[in-house]
Amino acid sequence: MTDRSLRVKNIISRIDELASISEDGSAITRRYGTMAAVEAGKKVLGWMVAAGLTARVDAIGNVRGVWKGDGEKTLVIASHIDTVVNAGRWDGPLGVLMGLDLVENIIRNGVRLPFDIELIAFCDEEGVRFHTTYLGSKVVAGSFEPEMLERRDEGGLSLLDVMGGNAGALEGERIAPERWLGYFEIHIEQGPVLYERKIPVAPVKAIAGQVRAEVIFKGMAGHAGTVPMEMRQDALCGAAEFVLAVEEMAGGGLLATVGKLQVKGSASNVIPGEVVCSLDIRSADEAVLSGGHERLRALCSEIGLRRGLGVEWKIVQVSSPVSCDARLRELLGRCVAAEGYEVLELVSGAGHDAVPVSVVSPVCMLFVRCFKGISHNPLEDVEEKDLEAALAVAEKFIQSIV
Amino acid sequence: MTDRSLRVKNIISRIDELASISEDGSAITRRYGTMAAVEAGKKVLGWMVAAGLTARVDAIGNVRGVWKGDGEKTLVIASHIDTVVNAGRWDGPLGVLMGLDLVENIIRNGVRLPFDIELIAFCDEEGVRFHTTYLGSKVVAGSFEPEMLERRDEGGLSLLDVMGGNAGALEGERIAPERWLGYFEIHIEQGPVLYERKIPVAPVKAIAGQVRAEVIFKGMAGHAGTVPMEMRQDALCGAAEFVLAVEEMAGGGLLATVGKLQVKGSASNVIPGEVVCSLDIRSADEAVLSGGHERLRALCSEIGLRRGLGVEWKIVQVSSPVSCDARLRELLGRCVAAEGYEVLELVSGAGHDAVPVSVVSPVCMLFVRCFKGISHNPLEDVEEKDLEAALAVAEKFIQSIV
Repeated sequence: MTDRSLRVKNIISRIDELASISEDGSAITRRYGTMAAVEAGKKVLGWMVAAGLTARVDAIGNVRGVWKGDGEKTLVIASHIDTVVNAGRWDGPLGVLMGLDLVENIIRNGVRLPFDIELIAFCDEEGVRFHTTYLGSKVVAGSFEPEMLERRDEGGLSLLDVMGGNAGALEGERIAPERWLGYFEIHIEQGPVLYERKIPVAPVKAIAGQVRAEVIFKGMAGHAGTVPMEMRQDALCGAAEFVLAVEEMAGGGLLATVGKLQVKGSASNVIPGEVVCSLDIRSADEAVLSGGHERLRALCSEIGLRRGLGVEWKIVQVSSPVSCDARLRELLGRCVAAEGYEVLELVSGAGHDAVPVSVVSPVCMLFVRCFKGISHNPLEDVEEKDLEAALAVAEKFIQSIV
Repeated sequence: MTDRSLRVKNIISRIDELASISEDGSAITRRYGTMAAVEAGKKVLGWMVAAGLTARVDAIGNVRGVWKGDGEKTLVIASHIDTVVNAGRWDGPLGVLMGLDLVENIIRNGVRLPFDIELIAFCDEEGVRFHTTYLGSKVVAGSFEPEMLERRDEGGLSLLDVMGGNAGALEGERIAPERWLGYFEIHIEQGPVLYERKIPVAPVKAIAGQVRAEVIFKGMAGHAGTVPMEMRQDALCGAAEFVLAVEEMAGGGLLATVGKLQVKGSASNVIPGEVVCSLDIRSADEAVLSGGHERLRALCSEIGLRRGLGVEWKIVQVSSPVSCDARLRELLGRCVAAEGYEVLELVSGAGHDAVPVSVVSPVCMLFVRCFKGISHNPLEDVEEKDLEAALAVAEKFIQSIV
């Protein structure tokens, strides 16, 4: 057995140990600030300390371990250890525990590098408990919004209550902009492209921006047996045209999905009077995203006008695309190629902690193939040989950053 | 004020009186066998007796009054006095109370006719309580299914309990086939055609047959941000094609409606994995109905095949169209024309007691314009001048039947 395959077995064993810490017995659930999340953080803290890092839990709950190199700047290697409800074991912990192994190996082998490394296990990437985004990494990047402290969970506890009331300490937890060398995160793809293309790892080109909207079609309800076709204003027929238009417009760097469609007061013998749809569009290219949004909105009005339907378009959320740093990305690609794999740059459709960090630092990510692209599900899985590939590429990458 | 307008005011006053009898205080609800339905029956019975009819409540609960003419045969004039939950006041009572006025007027004026008239207020046309169809008229037509007696309502009472246990008497309540001269029902249109075309009354050409089906599209759920468009099996896109195909296929005597569409486990960021739709198609022409059904079914399979979706097609209900009697219909049309109105024959998309009666007797119906086609709703309304038109046409019609 090679040294690298032993290291991968150790990473898996730690991921399994973390997976056994959960809010409930039958599934993996670790929402921000719960006893399970705190216990998982302590577990990671113990591993960091044992590896020789100067480690601590910060004011928001991130677990952070520093290795001192020979320079002024810091490379942050990070991912998150909070989860969705009924999660898989890989989403988040993979990046933290592979990062830990990488630093551990640097220490063990007495490697010298011209920068520090800070390994961070972020405490709230999924945002399930407070419906927030990136609490942990925003604190580190210095963009935490204090108004978030008043958010309350389902039980009525505020974020301030849960984090222990030390809001004044948050500001001091940021890494100053001039200290950032870069940000590197290893994460499962959470999509099927590497699985279908039979490639173990891939550099991420960008994290897609997103527009979420709610689209409402209003027609006239009526009796399915008595209203002639030509007198109808069927809201569902309008919505169906919209669903197909969304599908047709997608492609060319734009993902577009109608995930929800609800017929209000529906019955099999009633002509639909009102339909509410969701729209989710994503792209790594700001112009493609906003262009797609505008074209769909215009098309929707056109459908309403032609069919005599009222149309409402409510924007629910907008986020801009984030590009991974060109230099780091290219370097990562060269490391992938050097290990003998095809270089396929992927766009991440899901969000990651790299999004808030990108404001203060060059960011890059390495995606690892996951079984059938399944994620946020207990069936989430990664093969050992893909972990070996990721470890080899990441090691080469860290050692080649100037 | 003319005699006819006075009669119409009397009809409306009785319809209002009936509307005040309800299971609940704030709405009109009289389901079969409830205290409100029984009280409404007694009220109609009293009016029939006062008018000079030989009247009684039969074993299932129909209120039946006989006027003896000079012949062997019987013209049945009927409609129903049960209602849906939160009903309008016109659907059913209009035909009963206009029928009562017509017979009352025959008696008052000493008119002689070569047939008997039996005026019937059917007890269960809507079928809300036991999810049945046409209980009252099936007894009169001799096609009552005894297994219906075991049906139970939401409270666990059986039909047999509710009707008082006298099941043996039902058989004797039928009007023997050789005794039927014809069946005549006056009813609101429950659709918008007369309202839009500005015509007060219309003969009914046929009562549409109907196919109801449940159609299920099964694809593959996935993350809206990570699964490329070309790797998707989006069940909602398949269903949307189906909805538009249904709309496009309709027309030419076929009504077709998708009234329900449900995305299973839907979320705005999840590609729909399963969609369940209803299909409701109706036509007065058996060949159009079954042809439309087969074409849609084939089209649905084609959509599934092309998109890699599983498709299930479950037939929920099938009923055949019923034609109104050509001779009676033509006679009714001549009476409409004689009163100076355009003759527009309508297809009834909703079912009526004429359906079971058609097996033993020629049937015909006169539709009366209702406000915006609204029915099964407290907003159901009919104008006085349209009631006058209906009364004049019906009177002429009864006097011209040989």
